[in-house]
Amino acid sequence: MTDDRFWPPRGFAALDPEHSDYESSRVVILPVPYDSTASGWVGAREGPAAIIDASENMELYDIGIGREPYCVGIHTLPELAPHAGGPEAMLERIEEVVAELLDDGKFVVTIGGEHTVAVGAVRAHARRTPGLSVLAFDANADLRDSYMDTPYSHACTLRRALECLPAGRHGAPVVLVGLRSAEREEHEFIQDRGLPFYSPREYRAAGPESIAAQLADDVYITIDLDAFDPSQVAAVGTPEPGGLLWDEVSELLETVARRRRIVGFDVTELAPSLGPRANAQLAAKLTYRLIGLAVRE
Amino acid sequence: MTDDRFWPPRGFAALDPEHSDYESSRVVILPVPYDSTASGWVGAREGPAAIIDASENMELYDIGIGREPYCVGIHTLPELAPHAGGPEAMLERIEEVVAELLDDGKFVVTIGGEHTVAVGAVRAHARRTPGLSVLAFDANADLRDSYMDTPYSHACTLRRALECLPAGRHGAPVVLVGLRSAEREEHEFIQDRGLPFYSPREYRAAGPESIAAQLADDVYITIDLDAFDPSQVAAVGTPEPGGLLWDEVSELLETVARRRRIVGFDVTELAPSLGPRANAQLAAKLTYRLIGLAVRE
Amino acid sequence: MTDDRFWPPRGFAALDPEHSDYESSRVVILPVPYDSTASGWVGAREGPAAIIDASENMELYDIGIGREPYCVGIHTLPELAPHAGGPEAMLERIEEVVAELLDDGKFVVTIGGEHTVAVGAVRAHARRTPGLSVLAFDANADLRDSYMDTPYSHACTLRRALECLPAGRHGAPVVLVGLRSAEREEHEFIQDRGLPFYSPREYRAAGPESIAAQLADDVYITIDLDAFDPSQVAAVGTPEPGGLLWDEVSELLETVARRRRIVGFDVTELAPSLGPRANAQLAAKLTYRLIGLAVRE
Amino acid sequence: MTDDRFWPPRGFAALDPEHSDYESSRVVILPVPYDSTASGWVGAREGPAAIIDASENMELYDIGIGREPYCVGIHTLPELAPHAGGPEAMLERIEEVVAELLDDGKFVVTIGGEHTVAVGAVRAHARRTPGLSVLAFDANADLRDSYMDTPYSHACTLRRALECLPAGRHGAPVVLVGLRSAEREEHEFIQDRGLPFYSPREYRAAGPESIAAQLADDVYITIDLDAFDPSQVAAVGTPEPGGLLWDEVSELLETVARRRRIVGFDVTELAPSLGPRANAQLAAKLTYRLIGLAVRE
Amino acid sequence: MTDDRFWPPRGFAALDPEHSDYESSRVVILPVPYDSTASGWVGAREGPAAIIDASENMELYDIGIGREPYCVGIHTLPELAPHAGGPEAMLERIEEVVAELLDDGKFVVTIGGEHTVAVGAVRAHARRTPGLSVLAFDANADLRDSYMDTPYSHACTLRRALECLPAGRHGAPVVLVGLRSAEREEHEFIQDRGLPFYSPREYRAAGPESIAAQLADDVYITIDLDAFDPSQVAAVGTPEPGGLLWDEVSELLETVARRRRIVGFDVTELAPSLGPRANAQLAAKLTYRLIGLAVRE
Amino acid sequence: MTDDRFWPPRGFAALDPEHSDYESSRVVILPVPYDSTASGWVGAREGPAAIIDASENMELYDIGIGREPYCVGIHTLPELAPHAGGPEAMLERIEEVVAELLDDGKFVVTIGGEHTVAVGAVRAHARRTPGLSVLAFDANADLRDSYMDTPYSHACTLRRALECLPAGRHGAPVVLVGLRSAEREEHEFIQDRGLPFYSPREYRAAGPESIAAQLADDVYITIDLDAFDPSQVAAVGTPEPGGLLWDEVSELLETVARRRRIVGFDVTELAPSLGPRANAQLAAKLTYRLIGLAVRE
Repeated sequence: MTDDRFWPPRGFAALDPEHSDYESSRVVILPVPYDSTASGWVGAREGPAAIIDASENMELYDIGIGREPYCVGIHTLPELAPHAGGPEAMLERIEEVVAELLDDGKFVVTIGGEHTVAVGAVRAHARRTPGLSVLAFDANADLRDSYMDTPYSHACTLRRALECLPAGRHGAPVVLVGLRSAEREEHEFIQDRGLPFYSPREYRAAGPESIAAQLADDVYITIDLDAFDPSQVAAVGTPEPGGLLWDEVSELLETVARRRRIVGFDVTELAPSLGPRANAQLAAKLTYRLIGLAVRE
Repeated sequence: MTDDRFWPPRGFAALDPEHSDYESSRVVILPVPYDSTASGWVGAREGPAAIIDASENMELYDIGIGREPYCVGIHTLPELAPHAGGPEAMLERIEEVVAELLDDGKFVVTIGGEHTVAVGAVRAHARRTPGLSVLAFDANADLRDSYMDTPYSHACTLRRALECLPAGRHGAPVVLVGLRSAEREEHEFIQDRGLPFYSPREYRAAGPESIAAQLADDVYITIDLDAFDPSQVAAVGTPEPGGLLWDEVSELLETVARRRRIVGFDVTELAPSLGPRANAQLAAKLTYRLIGLAVRE
Repeated sequence: MTDDRFWPPRGFAALDPEHSDYESSRVVILPVPYDSTASGWVGAREGPAAIIDASENMELYDIGIGREPYCVGIHTLPELAPHAGGPEAMLERIEEVVAELLDDGKFVVTIGGEHTVAVGAVRAHARRTPGLSVLAFDANADLRDSYMDTPYSHACTLRRALECLPAGRHGAPVVLVGLRSAEREEHEFIQDRGLPFYSPREYRAAGPESIAAQLADDVYITIDLDAFDPSQVAAVGTPEPGGLLWDEVSELLETVARRRRIVGFDVTELAPSLGPRANAQLAAKLTYRLIGLAVRE
Repeated sequence: MTDDRFWPPRGFAALDPEHSDYESSRVVILPVPYDSTASGWVGAREGPAAIIDASENMELYDIGIGREPYCVGIHTLPELAPHAGGPEAMLERIEEVVAELLDDGKFVVTIGGEHTVAVGAVRAHARRTPGLSVLAFDANADLRDSYMDTPYSHACTLRRALECLPAGRHGAPVVLVGLRSAEREEHEFIQDRGLPFYSPREYRAAGPESIAAQLADDVYITIDLDAFDPSQVAAVGTPEPGGLLWDEVSELLETVARRRRIVGFDVTELAPSLGPRANAQLAAKLTYRLIGLAVRE
Repeated sequence: MTDDRFWPPRGFAALDPEHSDYESSRVVILPVPYDSTASGWVGAREGPAAIIDASENMELYDIGIGREPYCVGIHTLPELAPHAGGPEAMLERIEEVVAELLDDGKFVVTIGGEHTVAVGAVRAHARRTPGLSVLAFDANADLRDSYMDTPYSHACTLRRALECLPAGRHGAPVVLVGLRSAEREEHEFIQDRGLPFYSPREYRAAGPESIAAQLADDVYITIDLDAFDPSQVAAVGTPEPGGLLWDEVSELLETVARRRRIVGFDVTELAPSLGPRANAQLAAKLTYRLIGLAVRE
Repeated sequence: MTDDRFWPPRGFAALDPEHSDYESSRVVILPVPYDSTASGWVGAREGPAAIIDASENMELYDIGIGREPYCVGIHTLPELAPHAGGPEAMLERIEEVVAELLDDGKFVVTIGGEHTVAVGAVRAHARRTPGLSVLAFDANADLRDSYMDTPYSHACTLRRALECLPAGRHGAPVVLVGLRSAEREEHEFIQDRGLPFYSPREYRAAGPESIAAQLADDVYITIDLDAFDPSQVAAVGTPEPGGLLWDEVSELLETVARRRRIVGFDVTELAPSLGPRANAQLAAKLTYRLIGLAVRE
């Protein structure tokens, strides 16, 4: 009994069943409320619910890109249950579920939770898309080999991602934009490997086209929301001044969508209680716009 | 694609589909995010979502009453859309929807939103259950004839309810517990009509059995959460010191359930941002326990 | 008994009676704590009190425009009582009061409350100033013909405003700056009518002089604070990334004040509990500066 | 221009001018936003505004005591300006203003601010009422001779009060209820002097009549809100578990009002941002009820 | 350079070095900021810092028990680093550190973090004190065999504790007070084993002496703060109405201290951002009082 | 007992003892939790603890300037005790302590607390460094001769600083960047004296080199965090729109460090409860970067 006297059921963008049932939807939202390895301030496990709640306030025509992303169908799964036994088992669960969804022909959008969840999603995509590049938005290098006694900490996300992206290929395995915090060892690792990691200032100098040019044809995008300036997203565990602005991120995503094929993405690290609700609204709109850019009718 | 790697879908008590689909559920939760006539502090429209979110943290065996209320099936409807044209139209919508649910054989639990929403629910029940008594929990008398230019303000809730409960009957039309604030006119109205309205102190003196004894065989329960002491529920628009405690409310509900037939109820006025999250948890547990008391297998 | 051992009485800018009594004041602040048609997050009814409280912290010389706006006298009325019967009656009340103030020779500053309140103020001004243009700051188009069952929803504000601004005139009836969210139907309405609605990006390209050039000689300004970027004002019900910055808004207001005659304005949609107090401070300073620009000694 | 389309002007209990202008009002509210000597958590300077704002939501018939306290007239002064040069000068200012009000025939209600402000008020009353007793509600002994380099710290409030209440009199100079925290020196001071200082447990054993019996005929009441249990008032700088409940405080006040003459009182230490708004509501109702008890028509 | 112009260094109760250096201190505070298995609301990892910060506001003479607990020396360790690899490894780390401290002759107070941390502490104590009883304060049974894929979840705390407390002994291995939520399986486990688990109502009927009588001579106390009523401690992940009050808990602790030997304890589950700061103050005072009761000079 | 199973002890940047003990550290952090003269919103006394807590989340290699500032050693003192007798005595205490630290060869970083604390620090530096220039970041002129009855108010900070910086020297005594609020008298004082006070807009026009060129060889830097735009730091008592951005402040500091010798600095006015935690993170990173710029190995 749900007619037009009711709001639509809860789910990303508050879509009616026609545009959100699993079968006919091209896009699947996978919420992963996991933050067990968090080291700074806490609460990313509440991120998926906050982003979905905020998305229900969006108007469905994205005037900024002139599209209605929901038309391809967006299904919202229930939250993936955290595996409390440790991050390795949790990443396996994420990889397994993402893989099943990909094999079912879906475009998968993973909503964190901490940035670690990206490792599971990247692995599933990388195994199905040889030569994949990862475009990362992040304030931190996330290149530690191990942190707090585990190689599966959020601080190791891109180190683990690199390991499943083989070298000897067209395009960089990982390109990072937004960098402004690292340990000395990570800085040296970047220098030694010649990784294309850009601070906001360096990104402004290089421009979006030159970023896109370094990516392979198929691109997975992983977004740690702390890449944004804290004025735009304060609600993250490790906010860092001097970050990217909405228009800058949006322009880069538009450029990459025009030049490459986006095969999947994640949006992570929103800890909603650490900032105003407007931060969840930004994350929702970002997710919605990126669906519109990546998945065409 | 929802198996045991996932949390259950969002909905009251986070039940699996077997215990929550519409057809087989005996109980239906009707969320009404309406607070357009609020006069104090604001935010009761966020109450239904907060109560449902909190309910997902409950353990399903209610050790306090020795039952598993979910076994009768509890279906959660999407939120009823507010009618922004004015409260009269909104109350008609509520009455209409509750009536359809009752005619479909459901036990209806209305989750507000401001207390006004009870008027729609009471009307639908009263038309189907002649001689119904209303048991109200409230800090305020809610007996004004009109307030802020409308007879459908939250401050008029029980005045409107009285009008659809005919006199010349067995049992009082309305019994109120928790009273500790009123205007002089309301006080005089209570005195003139001899209404059985109890302050917490008077309730403690009278005891639950004497309250139950004044009710008709069929009872509708309307709960304005400000009946509770603000130490237990601060998150209401008009908190008033000196209220009821959890054990007192629970004991009265247990007594009424034993002595009378509860035909429906509502829980209203939670404005979640005005207090700690524990307040939503109390409202969820109260709703769950009252389902367990009112609806037997 | 109020001498210099006391702070001044509460009121906009905490002015002494000499600069704030009704008779001698050129400017009147009309606080309208109304948000009954709100659809997103809630609390704009607390906006007027928050803006006035914040204004009491301002220094009275506005160094940015080199003026002391308070010298013309600013009287703060008590809050207009909400009409809880529905938005149509509320808008009539607002129009009536604004009209009386205008007829009494006052410059009226309406402080919301939701954006809907602007409809009442615009009507009162339009009837007294033929050929008036409205300059709107807004993230949303607000052009729906009806929303949530009423034509007087906040989402219909500019549609209703358009209706009382006759065509066949010098200058556009409504110019909007800050647009970045709309439904498809609103987008088409804008296209069909050729309405001069500017996104922040388009505004930056066009520049303030070209905006001013499209306005009639007499201008009413209506400000929905969500026109600002959420980094500057997060405390709104429907925050939308990618908005206007303080310096941009200020520059446009300065330009319009130089080129046209500002006959009145409103500042709406601050929901103070949704962001830091600094947001109320911005709204207060914006109000104060716009008084300084619009009303000369 | 303020008619019934408007709310009443801001001020305690939102009274119309007839019941709140200075001349005809028997009671004067003196807000003192001072907390410069605070040592725990901070924000009591925002207490007066929060209490007055909350009081505007009260219903004016106090059903608990069966009276309408506003009928004697309650005038709200603007906030007393803090003297930033140090607490000694501030206390002189408070004493001076309270003295002028008393000499003008007013019943003075001082709203803090930190508890220190009571010293100024007590001095003014003690000089005009020989043999005055002070009834203090407080979690802390406040008996230090000096704290943080000044004898005028909040931690010295009752030590300073004692000094202006001469011995050799009928009734104890100070009776304290609510005690549950002290330094060893203060404990010894209490023991040595035999001061009638009661913990909540001791108060429950003694009962209100025995407290009243120890007071002189004329009583000044000073309320540090931390006397309440933190479940009832969390919004204080030094919350201490195990405090008094609303009904207990109310009963004692009713008893004292019946047995003695209350010549003035203060309500202090509400730091509103440290707890839910319901705390300010309790402080407002407490103030209103105590006016009703102390000042008869 | 730290003389009396400075506050004491940060640490429990803000003690001077004489009463807080490791060597001469009888008591050691072990802060464990761990909450990786949390399933409800989040933030217990911030509990230790909040409790220690709050403790710095305490007065050092505990007037309620007539002692100065700090005189035995209380040393505050830095925070134990979370092991992000999974709870099993973390519990081993806790057990190891507690064991070393015990072997060094210290009385260990573990400050959580989630309740799981108690398992490590109980193990270390149980191995050194044969026949130990555990007195648990908890709203939940915590008796699941596994939860969220691990046997080391917070929901399994007492099940794991039971396993290291051999049967065939004087006194119950675990006595629990405060129970009001459980799954059916846990309820049956309690019934089958005849575990002495008391709801608040049952505890009130039984009284503190009868609880103490069931304990062995040596007692370890584990406190999940959700045993308290949410009116006293709202800042927990799974608040449950109908809990224990401060005076009730305090009385039971006093009784046990009088009748038995307390060998160690923990205080867990404070998630400070979920409630007012007064909750941390209660936890600090509880910790301080229990030190005073357990460790005599 | 602190080994690598533990986090480092609390203190700026969470350094191990080797890099943080007093003797071997070149830099000393002096936390001053003082805000007794505050006039706007409140809470700067909690600033030092919040900044130090946030600093513990920083990564220690500052990638933005390519240095590891901690290598010179950074010792964190306990908090300086507030003198509650008045600001004059407090400033003397600050001056005395800073002087002792300078005489001991330390580079002193004072963390407020309100901006007033800078007066004590400036005096101590000025007496030891003839011809010193002060570079101030501030939204307000802070040039009043007296405010709220004292010449030692935060609103007088730069007026007092000017008095201890003799004229007839190379370089301006005070250069201010960020100005956007003042009283008329202060504006005239700036004009009359020809003080080099720059609004953000004027600073953008002038550029960092021209600012540096006006400073003497030795520079003390005083930072009132309200110089930043409220989008970057909302958590200040008097937020003012239109402020400086992180990159602008950082660039100016880098330029000054390159062109002049920085002898000391302070960071003041963070009132953490008024904004998101990200604001404290910015203040911590700012402090850390400025140490890196000012103190070379």
